[in-house]
Amino acid sequence: MTVDLNKMGQAAREASRQLALLGEQKKNQVLETVAQELLAKADEIIAANKVDLENATNMPEKFIDRLKIDNDRIAAMAEGVRQVAQLADPIGKIDAGWVNYAGLQIEKKRVPLGVVGMIFEARPNVTVDASALCFKSGNAVILRGGKEALQTNIKITKVIRQALEQEGINPDAVQVITETSHELANEFMQLTDYLDVLIPRGSARLIQTVLNTAKVPVIETGAGICHVYVDKFADKKMAVEITTNAKVQRPSVCNAIENLVIHQDVAQEYLPAIADELQKYNVELRGDEKVCEILGDKATLATAEDWDTEYNDYIIAIKIVSSIDEAIDFINEHNTKHSEAIITENYTRSQKFLDEIDAACVYVNASTRFTDGFEFGFGAEIGISTQKLHARGPMGLEALTSTKYVIRGNGQIRK
Amino acid sequence: MTVDLNKMGQAAREASRQLALLGEQKKNQVLETVAQELLAKADEIIAANKVDLENATNMPEKFIDRLKIDNDRIAAMAEGVRQVAQLADPIGKIDAGWVNYAGLQIEKKRVPLGVVGMIFEARPNVTVDASALCFKSGNAVILRGGKEALQTNIKITKVIRQALEQEGINPDAVQVITETSHELANEFMQLTDYLDVLIPRGSARLIQTVLNTAKVPVIETGAGICHVYVDKFADKKMAVEITTNAKVQRPSVCNAIENLVIHQDVAQEYLPAIADELQKYNVELRGDEKVCEILGDKATLATAEDWDTEYNDYIIAIKIVSSIDEAIDFINEHNTKHSEAIITENYTRSQKFLDEIDAACVYVNASTRFTDGFEFGFGAEIGISTQKLHARGPMGLEALTSTKYVIRGNGQIRK
Repeated sequence: MTVDLNKMGQAAREASRQLALLGEQKKNQVLETVAQELLAKADEIIAANKVDLENATNMPEKFIDRLKIDNDRIAAMAEGVRQVAQLADPIGKIDAGWVNYAGLQIEKKRVPLGVVGMIFEARPNVTVDASALCFKSGNAVILRGGKEALQTNIKITKVIRQALEQEGINPDAVQVITETSHELANEFMQLTDYLDVLIPRGSARLIQTVLNTAKVPVIETGAGICHVYVDKFADKKMAVEITTNAKVQRPSVCNAIENLVIHQDVAQEYLPAIADELQKYNVELRGDEKVCEILGDKATLATAEDWDTEYNDYIIAIKIVSSIDEAIDFINEHNTKHSEAIITENYTRSQKFLDEIDAACVYVNASTRFTDGFEFGFGAEIGISTQKLHARGPMGLEALTSTKYVIRGNGQIRK
Repeated sequence: MTVDLNKMGQAAREASRQLALLGEQKKNQVLETVAQELLAKADEIIAANKVDLENATNMPEKFIDRLKIDNDRIAAMAEGVRQVAQLADPIGKIDAGWVNYAGLQIEKKRVPLGVVGMIFEARPNVTVDASALCFKSGNAVILRGGKEALQTNIKITKVIRQALEQEGINPDAVQVITETSHELANEFMQLTDYLDVLIPRGSARLIQTVLNTAKVPVIETGAGICHVYVDKFADKKMAVEITTNAKVQRPSVCNAIENLVIHQDVAQEYLPAIADELQKYNVELRGDEKVCEILGDKATLATAEDWDTEYNDYIIAIKIVSSIDEAIDFINEHNTKHSEAIITENYTRSQKFLDEIDAACVYVNASTRFTDGFEFGFGAEIGISTQKLHARGPMGLEALTSTKYVIRGNGQIRK
C-alpha cells in the first residue's frame, strides 16, 4: 500500500470547498449520523482495536489502557461528537464591519482554515474528536496517528467516512494516513501546498519534533511549567488551598503547577501549613536552602534542574523570594508561558503580577487548573496554545478558523 | 566584529518587558523624539548612506534609487514615525470578557508579541518604519537588512537608539544585525528562544527563502496573482473601468491584477472595449484561443505559464469561461489567495463569488487595488498576509499583538 500525500492533500482541498459552504443545521445532522454510525459499528471498531492490542503486548499497562477501546469508550466518543454538534458554529460570524472613505462596505468574516493536519500518538479517541471539531468548523482534516493504533484509526475513519457519504458529504473531508513511517510523517509536516495548519497532540517530545520538522504552520500546544506565587499579602487559607489544588487535583496535566514561589515575610508561617497539606497527598517537597531550613527533613534540596522540570507528578519545587520583582523575574525565567497565579490581597501587587508575567493565562487568587476550554466556557478544547501567534491559551472552535475580507462596492476604482 | 544573536535576543527580550508596560502617551512622546533625532542627524545618515552608495556602483539604477537617502527621504521617514504615533495603541484592549461558572472574571486582553524579527532587502526606510510600528505596539525588534544598505541601517538604528536612551527607554528595543552573512541570517531565522515572530519584507524570493529556512513562526506577506472576473451580468462601463484600474493604476504592486477572466456571453462585446482602454496604457494582451479570435492581432496566445505569472508589469492574461463555476475554479486554481473581484449586477452570483473564492479579500464591483492597510482605514500597514493563520489580508498594528487571559478570582479551586 503506497500513500500519496499529494493526492490526499488535493482530495482534502477539494472536500474543504464543500465543507466551507455547509450551513450549521446540515453540519449538526451529519455529526449526529457520525455518532450513530460509531455506535452501530462498535463491534467492527472493537475488532480492529483487538488487532492493535495484540501487537502491543509488550507495551506498559498505562499505554494499553489508552489504546484499548470497549463499548463504553465508543459511547463516550459518540457523546463527544454530539457535544461538538451542540457548539455554536464559528463560521460566518462578522468580526468587524465598516465603510471606508470610498464607500466600500468592508466586512471581516470568519471562514474555515481549509485543511488541517493532525499528528497524534496512541489514543484513538483523538481521531473522532479531531474529525468532529474540524468538520464543525468547516475544515477537512488529514490524520496521522501513532502506529500502535493504526488498525483502530483506519476503522474509525472508515466508519466516519461512510457516515459522511450517507449524508452526501465528500468523504475526503476526513482522511487517515495508512502508513506510519517517519519519512512519510516528515513529508506530511512539509505538505505546504495542501495543509493550512498542523496541530500536534501528544507528548512534549512529539510536539518538539513537529516544531523542528514542519514547514506547515504549527499551532504549538502543550508544555506547562506553572507557578503559584504566594505574596507577603496573601491570605493564608487561600495560599494553602490554591497551592494544594493547583498541585494535586490532577498532577499529570499541563495546567497543574510544578513550582511554588513564596515571599520570605510569610514563608516561616505559611510554608509549614502548605507542606502539611501537600504531604497529605504524598507530594514530594524540594526547596532552596531557606525552604529546607524552615521545613527541615520534610524537604530535600532542589537542584538547578528542578526549576525547569515539568514533573507531571506528585513533586513540587519551592523557592523563597525577597520581593515580588524577584518572584516575577523567577517565574518569567522558568515558566513555559502557560498559567501563573499570584495569591495576594494587595491591589497594586495583583495588577503588577497580571501586567508583568508573560503567560497565556495569569490569575489572581485562583487555581491554575482552570486553564481549560471547558472551564473557560468554550464547550470544547482543541488544545492549549503556549505560542503567541494565531491563538494563545485554551483554544475553542474559533482557533480552527481564519478570516476573509468581503468588500462590496458600486464601481469604486482607486485614484 | 562578531555578532552574538543569543545575546541580542536576550537583550531584546529584556527590553520588551519595559515596552510592554509603557502607556500610549509615553510611547508617542518617544516616537516624536525619534522623528526629531532623525531630522537632526540627517547629515550623519546621508554620510553613512554615501558609503553604501559607493559600494553599490555596479547595481542597476532602480536599485540605487531605492537605496539612496537624501533630506527629502529623511523628512518622509520622520513624517512616517509621526504618523505611527497618531495610530491608536492596540495594547490593553479587551477583546472579550465574561464570568465563568465558578465566578472567575476572565478577560482576553491585547498584549505585545514580545520580540519581532524583520528580514528585508535594500530599502533603508524599512528600518525606520518597522522600528516605529514595533515600538508603538510594545514590541522589541531585531532588524536584518540587506548588505547593500548596511552602513545606512547601522547609522539609522544608532540614531533611533540614542533617541530611546534620551527618553529613558532601553535602547535594545531596536537592534540591527551588523553582519549580513547567510549563515547568520539562517541562525536568525531559527532563533526560537528569543523571537516570537519573523516578518520578511521584500521579493517573493526572499519570502520563499525565509519560509523554507525559518523555525520561528513567520507571517507570510506578499505574492499577488489577482483576478477580475467580468460576469455575464456585468455592467459594461464598470467592467472596463475596474479592469483597467486594477491593471494599470500601479502594476508593480501585489494587489494589481495579472489575469482577467470573462464570461463568453459578453466577451464579444466587452473585450474589445476593455482591450482598447488597456492599450491606451500600452498593456500587452495575452489570451486563450477565443480571446485571440475576438481581439485579432491585438492579442497574442497565452501559454500555460502565463496564468501563474505575477507580471507586476503592463501585461495581462485573459481567459474566457462558459460559466461562473468555471471562473471560480480557474481563479481558485491560479490565484495566490490575495485579492479577487467579480463585476456583476446579479445578486446571487455576487454572493456565490464572495462565498466560494478562497482569498484574503474578495470584491464585488470594485478594484482589487483597495487591498491595503491605508485604503482599509488602518492608518498603517505592516504588510498583506496571504496566509490564514494569525492575520489575513492587510495587517495593521493589531497584527503585531497577541492576547493574554487575565483571570481574577476570590479563592476559586477546581473541584
